[in-house]
Amino acid sequence: MNVEILGVGSELLLGQIANTNAQYISQKLSELGLNVYYHSVVGDNHERLLKALEIAVSRSDIIITTGGLGPTMDDITKETVCDFLGLEISVHGPSLERIEAYFRQRNRPMTQNNVKQAMFPEKAKILPNDVGTAPGAIVEEKGKIFIILPGPPVELKPMFENYVIPYLESKSDVRICSKVLKIYGMGESVVEEKIKDILLHQSNPTIAPLAGNLEVTLRITARCPKNQDPYDLIGPVENQIRERLGDVVYGVDDDQLESVVAALLKEKKKNISTAESCTGGLIANLLTNVPGISENFIEGFVTYSNESKMSRLGVDKGTLEKYGAVSAETALEMARGLIQVTGSDIGLAVTGIAGPGGGSERKPVGLVYIAVATADKIQVQKYVFQGDRIRIKNASAKAALDWLRRILLEIH
Amino acid sequence: MNVEILGVGSELLLGQIANTNAQYISQKLSELGLNVYYHSVVGDNHERLLKALEIAVSRSDIIITTGGLGPTMDDITKETVCDFLGLEISVHGPSLERIEAYFRQRNRPMTQNNVKQAMFPEKAKILPNDVGTAPGAIVEEKGKIFIILPGPPVELKPMFENYVIPYLESKSDVRICSKVLKIYGMGESVVEEKIKDILLHQSNPTIAPLAGNLEVTLRITARCPKNQDPYDLIGPVENQIRERLGDVVYGVDDDQLESVVAALLKEKKKNISTAESCTGGLIANLLTNVPGISENFIEGFVTYSNESKMSRLGVDKGTLEKYGAVSAETALEMARGLIQVTGSDIGLAVTGIAGPGGGSERKPVGLVYIAVATADKIQVQKYVFQGDRIRIKNASAKAALDWLRRILLEIH
Repeated sequence: MNVEILGVGSELLLGQIANTNAQYISQKLSELGLNVYYHSVVGDNHERLLKALEIAVSRSDIIITTGGLGPTMDDITKETVCDFLGLEISVHGPSLERIEAYFRQRNRPMTQNNVKQAMFPEKAKILPNDVGTAPGAIVEEKGKIFIILPGPPVELKPMFENYVIPYLESKSDVRICSKVLKIYGMGESVVEEKIKDILLHQSNPTIAPLAGNLEVTLRITARCPKNQDPYDLIGPVENQIRERLGDVVYGVDDDQLESVVAALLKEKKKNISTAESCTGGLIANLLTNVPGISENFIEGFVTYSNESKMSRLGVDKGTLEKYGAVSAETALEMARGLIQVTGSDIGLAVTGIAGPGGGSERKPVGLVYIAVATADKIQVQKYVFQGDRIRIKNASAKAALDWLRRILLEIH
Repeated sequence: MNVEILGVGSELLLGQIANTNAQYISQKLSELGLNVYYHSVVGDNHERLLKALEIAVSRSDIIITTGGLGPTMDDITKETVCDFLGLEISVHGPSLERIEAYFRQRNRPMTQNNVKQAMFPEKAKILPNDVGTAPGAIVEEKGKIFIILPGPPVELKPMFENYVIPYLESKSDVRICSKVLKIYGMGESVVEEKIKDILLHQSNPTIAPLAGNLEVTLRITARCPKNQDPYDLIGPVENQIRERLGDVVYGVDDDQLESVVAALLKEKKKNISTAESCTGGLIANLLTNVPGISENFIEGFVTYSNESKMSRLGVDKGTLEKYGAVSAETALEMARGLIQVTGSDIGLAVTGIAGPGGGSERKPVGLVYIAVATADKIQVQKYVFQGDRIRIKNASAKAALDWLRRILLEIH
């Protein structure tokens, strides 16, 4: 069975809000093994909504509408769906009582237009709204399933979890699960090149590559009968991909580079300090986004001025004069000074030119040096990143975190 | 002319990402006075995309596709649109050169499949991609306009701003402009209450309130013939709103709290240093996102451990033992130490409990102290924020930046 999600609301078409309902519902349906083939959005307009329903019915088995269940005149979804199906609507007693109770509990007067929210066709299965006033409904008609849901995510989500999912599960006999592999340091086209044959022969599980935010993800999705475990299908494909790609696969699912680094610091019982120039505190900020990091993160310096590089980290004035603040030499001295000053096991130092100003032909915007010091070794790497200031900061932080990850992996 | 935005990508239908491109484009088009009547999304599937194009052409004048311009086999948008229009594609020399240069600059090998990204029909107007490898295109055909854009927002947005908007403006005879007032420190419902009568009587300009990310924005939009200036309509309404709301209006349009603080530091010729505990470098990171801040931002400390609060900022061991790291006393000593150590005009210190662990009944998660030291005064404020770790860090940073803004405004 394939599904279309039909959002109704001018606020979507004006760009006042993103269609996060479609995202949420799609995620849930994909877990249930239902294929979502279409999202569509129309405004609060009777004619255009009717036509959109016509199109939806012509190509989808389940049509889920979101929005347009409010009490006002421009809320027309339910009425238009019933109009489309030729179904009369009348007051649904239990729903009216719930709405009346809603207002009573809040000591607010119920206006006449709220009665409209309790009106449904007789054959509808009513979906109670545990958070707001507008109930939803499921109508099976013309061999199709219409699921009518309210627009505010805070009302839609519990209604979906509590009433729609059990309904859909009862209609399905498959289970779908997916696992996401997270990749840093290899472009989308190279990833695809390396696993081309696996991608070409995919059917179950399927593999979907996605690039964004300087990373690539591969989503492996398997479906199987309800009494089997989809991860039995995912495992072998995951292993095959990992063999091909090697250690650019840094994590799975919700992992971030910073959370993987934090977990490795914990596992290897190491602590760390940071000295940042061009990233301006971004790396410290990312690391401290991870709960529990305080055990392993000692302190950070944002040594923006030359003065602070000297006074906090002991960078030599001669080095700054001879090689400049953005140089391998300065990065090395920053990292060395950092572990001396803080006594940390690992010191990470970054210096570079985030732009838009400050670049030259010899040292362009985007030039970044990253140095890592441990008790027995100090290393430095040179990078040239592209993009605006924010992107160069982000690229520098990701490169630094990934390098830390690789260094930590080598510690036994 | 009405517009349909057609997103292409299985990642949208699987719910991996929200369709923020449709939101962004809709916002921009509404500012241009173009009506968006439909959003639709299909997967990377030739047949279904063809049918979606058929539907779009039957009901819309301008069809904007997003996504599916990558180098991989499942990126089929451009090819399918050309197939639909019966147009041949061939290599566009300048685009191929740009893509080759992109890889050369990064010292990465260009794979053969990237050539596909430089292929276009001869009559297309090419939209350069200043950030990634996939150019976009505009094709006028069959009395309709097809605008083909890449999927990653970081690539789509600059292409839209720099090339699509000027193209669409040249097609329109009205001018629409808007100005956004940015508000921190007053909730959406209070803002609406204070300007209720203005909101009720709006027609041209219109006023759209929107809340999000701990701020409220008011978008004032005016439309007028091309030979007039929409800002003549916006000005009086803006002044009226500013009179009602006072100094919670911290900026306009693309202003951020950090950019306003940076501008005030420059204007008042003051420099600043930061000492952060619970915000973990976030405030330094935000400030250093602003180009040119290096003249006014001296350095930052992320004093996560008690040890670092003592050694870097001279916080007294007794203070930490008696009042704890999260206390007004510690915040004050951090700020005082900070200006002593750095010689900065202004010292900002933050200490708090970002959670999820570390809270107690007396000191709950979300308890945050912010202190600001100047040569003649040290002040501290106590806050209790709600939400998860990331939200508490954000709320703390915004509160700190807004307080800095208010302090800087008072300096003459």
